[in-house]
Amino acid sequence: MTEREASGSRAGGPVVRVGVLGCGNVGGELVELVDGDAEGIAARSGVRLQIVRVAVRNLAKPRSATLAPARLTHDAHAVATADDVDVVVELIGGIEPARTLIVDALKAGKPVVTANKELVANCGAELYAAAEAAGRELLFEAAVGGAIPLVRALRVSLAGERVRRVTGIVNGTTNYVLSRMSEERIDYGAALREAQSLGYAERDPTADVEGYDASAKAAILASIAFNADVVAGDVYREGIERIEVADIDVAHRLGYEVKLLAVAERAGDSGAVGVRVHPAMVPKGHPLAGVRGPFNAVFVEGDAIGELMLYGRGAGGKPTASAVLGDVLDAARSLASGAAVHFPAREHVEIRAIDELEAQYYLTIDVVDRPGVLAAVAAVFGEHGVSIRSMEQVDLGPEARLVLITHRAREADVQATLAGLRAVDAVERIGQLLRVVGPEA
Amino acid sequence: MTEREASGSRAGGPVVRVGVLGCGNVGGELVELVDGDAEGIAARSGVRLQIVRVAVRNLAKPRSATLAPARLTHDAHAVATADDVDVVVELIGGIEPARTLIVDALKAGKPVVTANKELVANCGAELYAAAEAAGRELLFEAAVGGAIPLVRALRVSLAGERVRRVTGIVNGTTNYVLSRMSEERIDYGAALREAQSLGYAERDPTADVEGYDASAKAAILASIAFNADVVAGDVYREGIERIEVADIDVAHRLGYEVKLLAVAERAGDSGAVGVRVHPAMVPKGHPLAGVRGPFNAVFVEGDAIGELMLYGRGAGGKPTASAVLGDVLDAARSLASGAAVHFPAREHVEIRAIDELEAQYYLTIDVVDRPGVLAAVAAVFGEHGVSIRSMEQVDLGPEARLVLITHRAREADVQATLAGLRAVDAVERIGQLLRVVGPEA
Repeated sequence: MTEREASGSRAGGPVVRVGVLGCGNVGGELVELVDGDAEGIAARSGVRLQIVRVAVRNLAKPRSATLAPARLTHDAHAVATADDVDVVVELIGGIEPARTLIVDALKAGKPVVTANKELVANCGAELYAAAEAAGRELLFEAAVGGAIPLVRALRVSLAGERVRRVTGIVNGTTNYVLSRMSEERIDYGAALREAQSLGYAERDPTADVEGYDASAKAAILASIAFNADVVAGDVYREGIERIEVADIDVAHRLGYEVKLLAVAERAGDSGAVGVRVHPAMVPKGHPLAGVRGPFNAVFVEGDAIGELMLYGRGAGGKPTASAVLGDVLDAARSLASGAAVHFPAREHVEIRAIDELEAQYYLTIDVVDRPGVLAAVAAVFGEHGVSIRSMEQVDLGPEARLVLITHRAREADVQATLAGLRAVDAVERIGQLLRVVGPEA
Repeated sequence: MTEREASGSRAGGPVVRVGVLGCGNVGGELVELVDGDAEGIAARSGVRLQIVRVAVRNLAKPRSATLAPARLTHDAHAVATADDVDVVVELIGGIEPARTLIVDALKAGKPVVTANKELVANCGAELYAAAEAAGRELLFEAAVGGAIPLVRALRVSLAGERVRRVTGIVNGTTNYVLSRMSEERIDYGAALREAQSLGYAERDPTADVEGYDASAKAAILASIAFNADVVAGDVYREGIERIEVADIDVAHRLGYEVKLLAVAERAGDSGAVGVRVHPAMVPKGHPLAGVRGPFNAVFVEGDAIGELMLYGRGAGGKPTASAVLGDVLDAARSLASGAAVHFPAREHVEIRAIDELEAQYYLTIDVVDRPGVLAAVAAVFGEHGVSIRSMEQVDLGPEARLVLITHRAREADVQATLAGLRAVDAVERIGQLLRVVGPEA
């Protein structure tokens, strides 16, 4: 208390005492940012921060010099509810114990900042309700898009906007892999190994390449863009494992890049929301097409704003810690104001089935190269009411690959077309199905 | 009061009564957004808005059907201080009477939202002080970059970040003109006339093409990025009138685009801040190089975040009204919390003179085409310690144009070199001087 007053008088503002749960990469960087620049942060923001307690799993692990053992503890719950902690930062990740720690911290009257995408994506409504009941902030800028200030943009800046669609490149690993495939024409396996050697991909890359990470982020984007109760399980999901350099070559020839997208959109006027993660063909003139390597970007379309894109580093200890720090300062100011924080209740929305999606489709179909095959294939499209916009044939020796782009069609009709094609004798294999971004040219 | 309570009970939140000063393009769109979607806005934000009074210059002017005469008045000051107005929106523009109206509204305890870049750029410190004294919000997201949520990003999300540099394309008119010159190889005059015919440029385009509009925005960006007292007059300024298609051709050949940039940066460790607006060579791989047409974008570099870009529509009634609406909702929530708002005092900073800038430079020099000229030109660069990185000669008949890019050099030395070159007999004309963005390759 004496120190608080003393520090307060030095900085011209109160000291806000921060408790940090989890001290991995992001936590370590956060401690370094705050310890290393407390004066600068106070000058810029008017808030003097002090990290008073840090809960870690392994007390024996060597830490940076500034992280004196006196601040470290095993007992995360004690930090989350401590009397001498004003703001709690949760950086443990996963569902439990993070969920219980956050709820108990809110109950103890502490604003909470978290970077935990899994938790926010799966238990967001519960956390919101706990924050509303406590009248305290719950901020999670770092849970999607690292340092990109998109959560605050959607929650605050665009609070009055009728958002139509949010389209994001929200997974740096897959964007790095696809960028390398596109730029160097190396195959998926080689690009993935390169990403692993650079630390952009985990040894087990499943969560990234199969789209699970992006799905959690898509759920969060949908829930904040539409103030809706959308969870990770609501998200239609495909990964990038089946993308071949041959697909990217065709994409380039037709004026597209292939990107793994997270899309959250209003489905017409029904009030339903569509949320999906899959690789897609993005026109080269689209701002998302130029997002390369490990960068992330989120493209927002709204009735009044038109088009908006936020771009930056989606991962990494320092950028993520910077986003957490921004939230901590926001929470600190909110706490200092003494006012209760309100969260509008999330609406229950219907989730549009992927079958109801309308888009253009890029398809590759390997067929036996003999007369009459094209007519048989075209007939199947016709039966299901799917209209072909362009088709070209690539010679593969005894076989041929048909590369098609459809006019705008319903996903269910396209899937029925594929089922019909599999029954055609001359069709050897359905290669690829990619949705095409943007209005039909 | 009865209506307030009644409305409040319908929406689940209090009615916030908004007074609007000025009802041009942006004001009209704001009224339409709020009148047309009050229920939707309330559902998304938890705040029910009602525009109760609108001050206009011309009461006789035809307005949209929703803008009933009962809400209209001549008396802006009465609206700014009315008992039945909770939040004041200033959309008159210019210094007076906007300044007095805003200060008086704050004194009357009302949060203020403004889109007035001229006022914020010239009297920002005074407005901040008035807001701090009143403990009320002063928000101006729409003053820079239209619907792009960059003011909030810099003030809130990046509050803890040590920002190094902010580089923006913040004027849609000049970006449209330069984009057309780049894409269509039409000259400056033709591109400007096209911009005028499309409504992207005013009949008198001075404020845009000479960089005055961008300078005001650069001052605002500098003041919020560095919490510094920077005004429009502190900004070094050049416009785009002297850019030729020939320059853009060379830029393309060397891998650059020409863009009018607003740059605000920390000048080394001195604490000084450099703020400048001028056309520049932007490497094609840089995210700003791809910002085309009337779009705006702001690229932020910071110690922890790395690189961040925000992109969107920088002007237009609807996008700007959307940004104003986001601010109104933020101000309304802040007001409802009942807490005083604090603004950290802006620091006085030293403004770095343009002479102290260090950059690479692109130069064109028209010379008489005869032996020994190159040696004479090179000698002048050598005398002033400016090292040439690349030089090529373009044949123009009896004359030749030398196109040079320097290594990193001090602006003062480059200017001294140009003065020296003018004294060389064989030098006919110094054509162009453009600063090159980015670290030296």
